[in-house]
Amino acid sequence: MPNPTAAMIVIGDEILSGRTRDSNMHYLANQLTNHGISLTEVRVVADNPAAIQAAIKAMSAAYDTVFTSGGIGPTHDDITADNVAAAFGVGIDIRDDARDLLAAYYASQNKEFNAARQRMARIPDGATLIDNPVSIAPGFTIENVHVMAGVPSVFQAMVASVMPTLTGGAPLLSQNLRLQRGEGDIATPLSQLAEEFSDLSFGSYPFIQDGAHGCNLVVRGTDPARIDAAMSKLTKLAEAP
Amino acid sequence: MPNPTAAMIVIGDEILSGRTRDSNMHYLANQLTNHGISLTEVRVVADNPAAIQAAIKAMSAAYDTVFTSGGIGPTHDDITADNVAAAFGVGIDIRDDARDLLAAYYASQNKEFNAARQRMARIPDGATLIDNPVSIAPGFTIENVHVMAGVPSVFQAMVASVMPTLTGGAPLLSQNLRLQRGEGDIATPLSQLAEEFSDLSFGSYPFIQDGAHGCNLVVRGTDPARIDAAMSKLTKLAEAP
Repeated sequence: MPNPTAAMIVIGDEILSGRTRDSNMHYLANQLTNHGISLTEVRVVADNPAAIQAAIKAMSAAYDTVFTSGGIGPTHDDITADNVAAAFGVGIDIRDDARDLLAAYYASQNKEFNAARQRMARIPDGATLIDNPVSIAPGFTIENVHVMAGVPSVFQAMVASVMPTLTGGAPLLSQNLRLQRGEGDIATPLSQLAEEFSDLSFGSYPFIQDGAHGCNLVVRGTDPARIDAAMSKLTKLAEAP
Repeated sequence: MPNPTAAMIVIGDEILSGRTRDSNMHYLANQLTNHGISLTEVRVVADNPAAIQAAIKAMSAAYDTVFTSGGIGPTHDDITADNVAAAFGVGIDIRDDARDLLAAYYASQNKEFNAARQRMARIPDGATLIDNPVSIAPGFTIENVHVMAGVPSVFQAMVASVMPTLTGGAPLLSQNLRLQRGEGDIATPLSQLAEEFSDLSFGSYPFIQDGAHGCNLVVRGTDPARIDAAMSKLTKLAEAP
């Protein structure tokens, strides 16, 4: 049975403008791979209602699980929760349990729990909260979509809250052979090996270091014995002149 | 007149599996912002014909310019060129000018110009080549889609080849105010300022450092005098208790 599929929607003008370099995609990709879930597509969209809603609708229909990052804070440009609610055609309002969590937190910090901060307790109808041990303001899950913060430490904490609730498949294992030759030298035998081991996937990732061409050959699959067998043949091929 | 729009398609299982952290998106985002072109959407898709073709079709129809990265090398998993051709319904074959470039390069390197490397001369009918001073194998432009390599140094060289051919708008300028307070403290006046300066865009990007909440408030626009005026008001607001 193929592994479950996942997609991610990164929401934020700051990524698209180049101001901020996203790190959540790479983090989530590794977590999902270890959990046996195939991250299959990522979209980065602007802080724009139509763009957010279109991405939510398309991705939640196409994949088993969807993760979003960004746009759930207290400021006017935090529009994710409202647009997730709109995408699913449900209402959204301040919810008592989320408001109580935040009220207690800001009281403990001697900070005002003002109207802006109360916006973070706006949760779409029917959603369940995602625990945020870092900064309390919760994420939420609605249908198959997990809505999470963009700040990396908070995003990671929310992933840790959600991951145990997901059913994973067999973890995707990989082995890597680093070659100090251009991938063109090995492309033909690599392709033949990929046909022989059709249950595995073979990737070639070129690099240029100090002006010289090299590549990393990566074998991926779920059966460690098959990967070992393929790596053994690949190593011999790579040593051939 | 609004700035031209652009989109990017990152092609590669290695990004989605978490093996490689993409850096081309962040690089391109900055280049486009400086050039007055709005990067509006990014999609990361797998090495999968249907996924690549769907993304090419959707993005080339929706945006002024599209950039792709990845999947144009000599190995069996390099399937971008064939699927770009298929997306546009044109043929693809080894083209003389691309083959000649590569033949000369490999001769100069005393490397065999074998069948795998000749694959890199496969160019969709009607495309124009994108110069690659780093490793010679060209990218190509077809319709409004620029197809480029995934290796960062090659990607960057190809961006440098393409960028002067694009018509940009007014460069998007920004100023940043770093605040050592939670964004909830400033959210309401920030929102009012965003309404007052409706020709600018205002973003708030929270961070947590040493356990304390802070945020970067960013004002973006094309008119430096307006940004100065907004920053002056923003600084006063931020100093208020």
